Amino acid sequence: MEFDVEPIDIGSRAPTVLLNEADAADLGVHAVERVQLRHANGTSVAIVELTDKLVSPGVLGVTRRLGHIEGPVAVSIAPQPASVSAIRKKLDDIELEHHELHQLVRDIYEERLADVELGAYVSAVYANGLSLTETTHLTECMAAIGEQIQWPEPIVADKHSIGGVAGNRVTPILVPIVAAAGVKIPKTSSRAVTSAAGTADTMEVLCDVDFSIEEIRDIVEDVGGCLVWGGAVNLSPVDDRIIRAETPLSIDPRGQLIASVLSKKKSAGSTHVVIDIPYGEGAKVLSLADARELASDFKRVGEHLAMHVECAITNGAGPVGRGVGPLLEARDILDTFAGEGPADLRIKAIRLADLLFESVGVDANAAHILDSGRAEATFRAIIEAQRGDPDISVSDLVPGEHTHRVYADRAGVITHINNVYINEIARRAGAPKDPAAGLRLGHRLGDNVVEGDLLFTVHAESPDKLADARKLTERVEAVRVRHPDEALIDRV
Amino acid sequence: MEFDVEPIDIGSRAPTVLLNEADAADLGVHAVERVQLRHANGTSVAIVELTDKLVSPGVLGVTRRLGHIEGPVAVSIAPQPASVSAIRKKLDDIELEHHELHQLVRDIYEERLADVELGAYVSAVYANGLSLTETTHLTECMAAIGEQIQWPEPIVADKHSIGGVAGNRVTPILVPIVAAAGVKIPKTSSRAVTSAAGTADTMEVLCDVDFSIEEIRDIVEDVGGCLVWGGAVNLSPVDDRIIRAETPLSIDPRGQLIASVLSKKKSAGSTHVVIDIPYGEGAKVLSLADARELASDFKRVGEHLAMHVECAITNGAGPVGRGVGPLLEARDILDTFAGEGPADLRIKAIRLADLLFESVGVDANAAHILDSGRAEATFRAIIEAQRGDPDISVSDLVPGEHTHRVYADRAGVITHINNVYINEIARRAGAPKDPAAGLRLGHRLGDNVVEGDLLFTVHAESPDKLADARKLTERVEAVRVRHPDEALIDRV
Repeated sequence: MEFDVEPIDIGSRAPTVLLNEADAADLGVHAVERVQLRHANGTSVAIVELTDKLVSPGVLGVTRRLGHIEGPVAVSIAPQPASVSAIRKKLDDIELEHHELHQLVRDIYEERLADVELGAYVSAVYANGLSLTETTHLTECMAAIGEQIQWPEPIVADKHSIGGVAGNRVTPILVPIVAAAGVKIPKTSSRAVTSAAGTADTMEVLCDVDFSIEEIRDIVEDVGGCLVWGGAVNLSPVDDRIIRAETPLSIDPRGQLIASVLSKKKSAGSTHVVIDIPYGEGAKVLSLADARELASDFKRVGEHLAMHVECAITNGAGPVGRGVGPLLEARDILDTFAGEGPADLRIKAIRLADLLFESVGVDANAAHILDSGRAEATFRAIIEAQRGDPDISVSDLVPGEHTHRVYADRAGVITHINNVYINEIARRAGAPKDPAAGLRLGHRLGDNVVEGDLLFTVHAESPDKLADARKLTERVEAVRVRHPDEALIDRV
Repeated sequence: MEFDVEPIDIGSRAPTVLLNEADAADLGVHAVERVQLRHANGTSVAIVELTDKLVSPGVLGVTRRLGHIEGPVAVSIAPQPASVSAIRKKLDDIELEHHELHQLVRDIYEERLADVELGAYVSAVYANGLSLTETTHLTECMAAIGEQIQWPEPIVADKHSIGGVAGNRVTPILVPIVAAAGVKIPKTSSRAVTSAAGTADTMEVLCDVDFSIEEIRDIVEDVGGCLVWGGAVNLSPVDDRIIRAETPLSIDPRGQLIASVLSKKKSAGSTHVVIDIPYGEGAKVLSLADARELASDFKRVGEHLAMHVECAITNGAGPVGRGVGPLLEARDILDTFAGEGPADLRIKAIRLADLLFESVGVDANAAHILDSGRAEATFRAIIEAQRGDPDISVSDLVPGEHTHRVYADRAGVITHINNVYINEIARRAGAPKDPAAGLRLGHRLGDNVVEGDLLFTVHAESPDKLADARKLTERVEAVRVRHPDEALIDRV
């Protein structure tokens, strides 16, 4: 059937068209089924929603996600995407061939898979895993789609953390250290999905993070590194869609994780990558054995892609740094350059930078570069190149004015600081949307405290969000204090 | 945040609200995320789509699926549905507890699960299976939700086919036979999802099929049985949603299949059920061993639910009957009552009816009831009770006037008639939407044919659809003719 086109102002996630119920009945399509659109600019696939009045019979309502389409459009029922049989095969625990993974990545890229099918794909990978061969092929296929950055230098460094640790804002310290040693490091980072801040959220407190590939190239050419938002460049569009299917299920299957990370690094033109794998209670990886397996797989897939991958297995059982939330983490970073930051953050950045130096074969010492002020100078140069104020100081960064303090209710030792609760308290307080919201830890793991000592301070930009966060602090034990001799916690 | 309400004329499958982009940013929700709505009538969960202009800031666009909601509505980010952790557990291949299955069924019923999560659920059940205990609990939970029918009689018969066979319109012959013997049989049937006709589509050629539970009760009270559409009554609303997730993936995992079928029978108040399990090449169940396992599971879950379940493992390698498509199948049925129908259809209906008689302990003979004309009289009484013309005859049912005939291109034996191709040809010809579309087989499996013998005739209501169907007949071998001595099919 042929249709005229009417643009409809709805920004759905998937490309969607509105059909009059009468037309849908004639075509034999139901709500949420897919149709194929043939038009002057080519072919598209879209999800159908139905309406009685928003569009008339004979008119196709085209939502924003489809871009500009000129009528007339021939609409027909879309065939089942070719990769659905590959998804079924993976559910049957049969290894997928290169061409099947290629088709799958293409179908995801072209948004031919409905959410039900994407959910089945990530479930199949979670339930039955991906072999190293599959992971390598998947990484290649994902890297080949979307934009690519080429660099004239033979060595391009990169860094990634698999996440799950509150605070942990190592990247903005490591990148300037590496760049100051003359090693190019064009770092793209994400915004928070389920955490209180991503590196992009934290950097945005200090400067812009939204740049095109050309601008990134200029910045890196100029100051040796950058700290930008990866979402603004289209390095792995397929990965973004897969993550949106994993997030509601709270799953992150290993093979997919490796392919996601390394395909982005490959597209970014990186040659040497250090990967931070935090493990422990409350982290994404629970045991040292799992962390080692993951690290080994990362390295082997890296080899197949001609990337040098080094993995650092780190302590992920609790937050790294004092602040959690964009502005509070930015304060930790500036403090670290001034020699006054949290020790765990400083040491972790230095260790990871040294690992990268060793990997690229550069004779440099991260601690020296940091202590000499060269790293800070490079950091401020990056801020300036990214249109921020290079003279910004900690006193310019004022945490949310509405505060709630949580104190130790007994004497003892801090035996655990829970990443999940800490992140969630900071999120309820408004982070990452409210940059000055979050929390600041008063003590570190292993510290001795007495009753009434400050455990942490919640900061919010609004009293309502502070109240939400406060309620959570009363329900969960985000910071655990135990007396070594204490057997009975409470008696009811 | 509080919102005024504006109804939006969009019929989406899931309950959907439209938010102005500015409000969505304030709430921190993205497209396709879920929000919780608190309003005077209670709480709902809805999927968010974004708009710039269709609704203004401060206004919530409420689509039809949500029903009537009065403002003001308090909108907040919906928490992750409780059953997502059960889905993850099943992906980890861990047996689910009764309360977890209960939560899952509730969340599906209240449409709290997004498509990604529904896709993960059916994938998990497909990949890791359900134990008999899980299947029993799932069936109980599914049966407990939605409407229930109670009957005064101690014995209520029912029949179900797991499908996959073209034609196979046994039910409209079996139901009158059983009812004529004085056994109540309130049969609800489905419309076609992927086949050329469901029993409801075929019956609709002869009478109405869309009745409320009260009307069904009156019809069955009056004539002993009915042949209505199950979709009009809300017997297993959860099943409908699960099927919509299975269909795009073309999966139908065993435990889910059993729970789907038996929960509907339980809700319908059935005490004795015969289940037709066709197996063979091109059917849903491929091997006799699989069919037997499925039958045994059906019976055992039935026992737990205090239902007598009998299973008939039948020949599913090819179509049953001559006609495929609503009207062409209705002709086969009227022919069968007149003693002129296809032998395989007649015999299958008789065998299944006798099995049901044996199961309920009624001393009746299906062939006698059929041959005596009592079944036909009851069938016509059902048609009349369902507002059809009880005097309808085969000559009133005129197949689509646009026809294409397919002839044998060699002499030999018909060794296979492919269900999938036969269904697809009939669907391309317009079935089930065009009731007079479909096809009529000229010969049966095992028949000897000579070159030029008619294999089948395609009927369509429009020349365009006939052309579509014709194209498929040229590409696929729907009816396979082989000469016993033929070794070389073709030489290229």
